[in-house]
Amino acid sequence: MNVRMFLGDALVDAVAWDDRGLAYGESLFETMRGHRGRVPWWMAHMVRLRRGAEALAMPLPDAARMQQEAEALLDGGVGVLKLQLTRGGGMRGYAPASDAPPFWMLSRHPLPASVDALDAIWCETRLAAQPRLAGLKHGNRLEQVLAGAEVRAAGVDEGLMRDGEGHAIAATAANLFILADGRWRTPRLQSCGVAGVMREWALGELEADIATLTPEAVETADAVFLCNAVRGILPVRRLGAKAWPQVHPEIRDLQARLARAQPGFDPSQEAS
Amino acid sequence: MNVRMFLGDALVDAVAWDDRGLAYGESLFETMRGHRGRVPWWMAHMVRLRRGAEALAMPLPDAARMQQEAEALLDGGVGVLKLQLTRGGGMRGYAPASDAPPFWMLSRHPLPASVDALDAIWCETRLAAQPRLAGLKHGNRLEQVLAGAEVRAAGVDEGLMRDGEGHAIAATAANLFILADGRWRTPRLQSCGVAGVMREWALGELEADIATLTPEAVETADAVFLCNAVRGILPVRRLGAKAWPQVHPEIRDLQARLARAQPGFDPSQEAS
Repeated sequence: MNVRMFLGDALVDAVAWDDRGLAYGESLFETMRGHRGRVPWWMAHMVRLRRGAEALAMPLPDAARMQQEAEALLDGGVGVLKLQLTRGGGMRGYAPASDAPPFWMLSRHPLPASVDALDAIWCETRLAAQPRLAGLKHGNRLEQVLAGAEVRAAGVDEGLMRDGEGHAIAATAANLFILADGRWRTPRLQSCGVAGVMREWALGELEADIATLTPEAVETADAVFLCNAVRGILPVRRLGAKAWPQVHPEIRDLQARLARAQPGFDPSQEAS
Repeated sequence: MNVRMFLGDALVDAVAWDDRGLAYGESLFETMRGHRGRVPWWMAHMVRLRRGAEALAMPLPDAARMQQEAEALLDGGVGVLKLQLTRGGGMRGYAPASDAPPFWMLSRHPLPASVDALDAIWCETRLAAQPRLAGLKHGNRLEQVLAGAEVRAAGVDEGLMRDGEGHAIAATAANLFILADGRWRTPRLQSCGVAGVMREWALGELEADIATLTPEAVETADAVFLCNAVRGILPVRRLGAKAWPQVHPEIRDLQARLARAQPGFDPSQEAS
């Protein structure tokens, strides 16, 4: 089976019934792209995981052990690698015990098929404002589950989510970039949203601005793409009634730069 | 072990590693007080569970089977009974599969010690506004976990939580009622908070108003109590700098009415 579970340093064979990730979503996760037995952006994922663990005052497993187990699971190949980390077992009651060893789990999944461009909708489900959790990839994901159901019902590839004030924040499982007036912009994530590893890379490559984005700004943009650390740079072809029939050359250029920086994102390399 | 796990109709001996309750907090739960082998408010808990399942489009296990298993676990005795229900196993990705059988779990725990009155604080962690999830007892509870850590650090019994606009909503694990101008009031829960089974009972008994409550309204109230379906009616003795040294006679009266209506909440009955 392509999954390994641990409690602290020890390999275990099941999730504990009283796991606080299961009870309360008291967990963090990272979804990573593995390539030739390695996770090229391992360090960036670990930086975000550590930020989440600090915000939730959760203990972290040994960093070298996590990486060693991740690479063992990849076994020289490619795939999506998911790392889940929970508070571990605990009493009934919200206040966490500080002494439980963390539960963590690695699972390996097939790479998603590459696509040329995505069709998207605006989801009705909004992202609630919670500054203490904003930016983190934590396990409280009911908003994304509800929005994901909207996406599936609409028969499209992704859905853009707004905050309570109506500003565009992100897709259900990807960050959002738009090109307007010759500048790339991506939404502020102080109140909600996940600060993605690929967003971080694209911010630097594009010298993009972090801005408040209205839905109108997205719909009137010259180009729109979504991104995440598994699927790379994903041009948006359609958003509701609005269409961008041609992938913008600046998006093609960014994809090429990504494939050079990280060969794991080069579609021609996928089988290796 | 005082726990039983099921996948649909079948008894299972472990939580699946790909359970969506574990991955995303895609779950619902009920925490109930068992008395003499029964859960007196079973039906009220099931009404709320059903409301949650509808909101999350989650399938429910057979109702008679859940009750039968709950009573088997109580084995004629008293205790806290926790029912957790998740979406079950699933693919990676937010959109839920519709065909997985639900995972559910019953666990029995000792009754908490009864207390005469509680000391509370105002928590800094706010409750985010999410109308699609408000009122439900779902498994996305990181806000309560963060607030619970504040309560523990302060060395008090409970913490009151406000929404993003600063209005008082609830305690971390209980609903809130205040007495002012001869009327009982409890906060509106359209945007956040859990609509408790005991809140429902107290609303009817007290002919209380559902209102927007400022922290000042709470602090200047003639009496304040918290309530939940495990611990009953809990007078607040202290809230930060404000104190109510004597339990208000109307709270004592409500406690007596509860003990008559549900002998499981009569402290003198606890051992039976």
